[in-house]
Amino acid sequence: MTPAHTAHDNTPAAAATTANPLQRLADALKPDMAAVNALILDRMQSDIPLIPQLAGHLIAGGGKRIRPLLTLASAALFDYKGTRQYKLAACVEFIHTATLLHDDVVDESDQRRGKASANAVFGNEAAVLVGDFLFSRSFQLMVEDGSLEVLRILSNASAVIAEGEVLQLSTANNIDTTEADYMKVIGAKTAELFAAACEVGAIVADRPASECQALRDYGMYLGLAFQISDDVLDYAASEERLGKSIGDDFKEGKMTLPVLKAMAKSSAAEKQFWQRTMCDLDQKDGDLAEAQALIKKHKGLELSLAQARDFAAKGRKCLENLPGNGIRRDLAELIDFAVERDY
Amino acid sequence: MTPAHTAHDNTPAAAATTANPLQRLADALKPDMAAVNALILDRMQSDIPLIPQLAGHLIAGGGKRIRPLLTLASAALFDYKGTRQYKLAACVEFIHTATLLHDDVVDESDQRRGKASANAVFGNEAAVLVGDFLFSRSFQLMVEDGSLEVLRILSNASAVIAEGEVLQLSTANNIDTTEADYMKVIGAKTAELFAAACEVGAIVADRPASECQALRDYGMYLGLAFQISDDVLDYAASEERLGKSIGDDFKEGKMTLPVLKAMAKSSAAEKQFWQRTMCDLDQKDGDLAEAQALIKKHKGLELSLAQARDFAAKGRKCLENLPGNGIRRDLAELIDFAVERDY
Repeated sequence: MTPAHTAHDNTPAAAATTANPLQRLADALKPDMAAVNALILDRMQSDIPLIPQLAGHLIAGGGKRIRPLLTLASAALFDYKGTRQYKLAACVEFIHTATLLHDDVVDESDQRRGKASANAVFGNEAAVLVGDFLFSRSFQLMVEDGSLEVLRILSNASAVIAEGEVLQLSTANNIDTTEADYMKVIGAKTAELFAAACEVGAIVADRPASECQALRDYGMYLGLAFQISDDVLDYAASEERLGKSIGDDFKEGKMTLPVLKAMAKSSAAEKQFWQRTMCDLDQKDGDLAEAQALIKKHKGLELSLAQARDFAAKGRKCLENLPGNGIRRDLAELIDFAVERDY
Repeated sequence: MTPAHTAHDNTPAAAATTANPLQRLADALKPDMAAVNALILDRMQSDIPLIPQLAGHLIAGGGKRIRPLLTLASAALFDYKGTRQYKLAACVEFIHTATLLHDDVVDESDQRRGKASANAVFGNEAAVLVGDFLFSRSFQLMVEDGSLEVLRILSNASAVIAEGEVLQLSTANNIDTTEADYMKVIGAKTAELFAAACEVGAIVADRPASECQALRDYGMYLGLAFQISDDVLDYAASEERLGKSIGDDFKEGKMTLPVLKAMAKSSAAEKQFWQRTMCDLDQKDGDLAEAQALIKKHKGLELSLAQARDFAAKGRKCLENLPGNGIRRDLAELIDFAVERDY
């Protein structure tokens, strides 16, 4: 069934000693990513100047572009020779950008990717509306592509993401949040789009359902591992390396895994601390340091990372029956990198 | 070409003496509208309780349901016997509801349809995210319908609406706003969805392109006339009858047609008044009354309504070559009603 895949076999391997797997994938897919970036720039244009200004602020702001890269990698894994993946990778990035814009409004963030967030520069109103525009533009691009299957996958993903964000609102500042709630939130708000991004690449390559599902499952585990790592970094990272301030989740009272792990073993006094700081949002100087100390005491970061590593192992397993080329190796290493990165 | 249409010929006529054309259409299409309302209630559900709570607050809040009614009327005009229009009418209402939710966040409104707005009750965050959910859900419904043509029309409409909203942000508080800018804003933020709602009804009835275009054009003129009338009512209506406070556009410095008409003929002192109140938003007691007096002096309402009547005449003309049944008569009268209503 599986054809021999030789494309992309050498480039990633050659660079393996000098770069992380995300960088290796980006290098291996450089011309594809350039095509996607050109499309993103072209299709975020509008007669209304504020739209490309605001969208450009965020999109030019960089970010890892990991989601469109997953669509490209997934198509390349199957040695797909067409160009449909470019438009769909741009769709995925537009959906992601729209959710970031709306997220920052929701979180009242003033920083994103190490610089002032779009809502801080252009106002909440414009950030909401340009998010809506990018979201609509994404569906226009999907219609141009013409696959109802892709439209189904990405409209489902969009609805699930919104549900995840609303659920996160309900769990924030809520001492009764369970690990199951947390997993549901990150599965919906983060992993769903990773899963869809991977699946769409297999769909354009016209692969059988089992292979599309395998890529989807891989993306889901990657997203879960990635988000847990993100949530760990918010208590552990160096601000300079991360490109954003740490402690944001604490300040907003977001019930992330490191806190849930620490809370599960907390004394009555500790529980009162969490109630005051994260639920009542009554925070004073030194509280973040105290939270970090409590998380350390109860091994909140290690336990969270252990969970992320478990997802990573499951994700790697999804790749087992797929073509054994360099892209597959990079995807397998990417999921470990998502857990172990320090930024 | 045009088949004989007898359906719906009698019901609307029978009720003609007792109700306005919007009510007559709603009466003629009562079972269809009931099907759409059931679908709306069913498809705004989610495992996340806040979503149906918040969506229900707005959707149960009523509103005229004019957009889904247009989709139903358009399908009924051609005596379409299927059920596809129900789902698509629900799509149109979901898109409209999503834009209302985001609008209220943007405008920081505390009232909508005569009661507290969703953002005032549930917070801006939830209003943004539930808007995103309804928008995504709308695309899921379109995918279920399975027509790429409908998906094209409604994804284009969504992008144009967002552009119109952003343009409106740029024209607000801007003394240099022209009537052309205003027409562009209302064409995009309001008329585009009216046009799409009408067009989609003709598409499901499988009508030739010329008829789909005629319905689309009718909807566009209806939307323009409707929005101008809305903007007139914001300076002229009885608050009780309108179900929302008047003077909102003035308070926010929205450059609507009555103001543009008055500004076009304003003295230097009057121009300073508009600059202070609408651009600098430096408003004091009595300013709204003064604005209303200046609009009256320069016939701002009459001139605006004359423009709306011109659009109404053009809209009626679009219907000329369509089936001459009761639905067509109601649609023709609806566009006059949109202009002349006092609420």
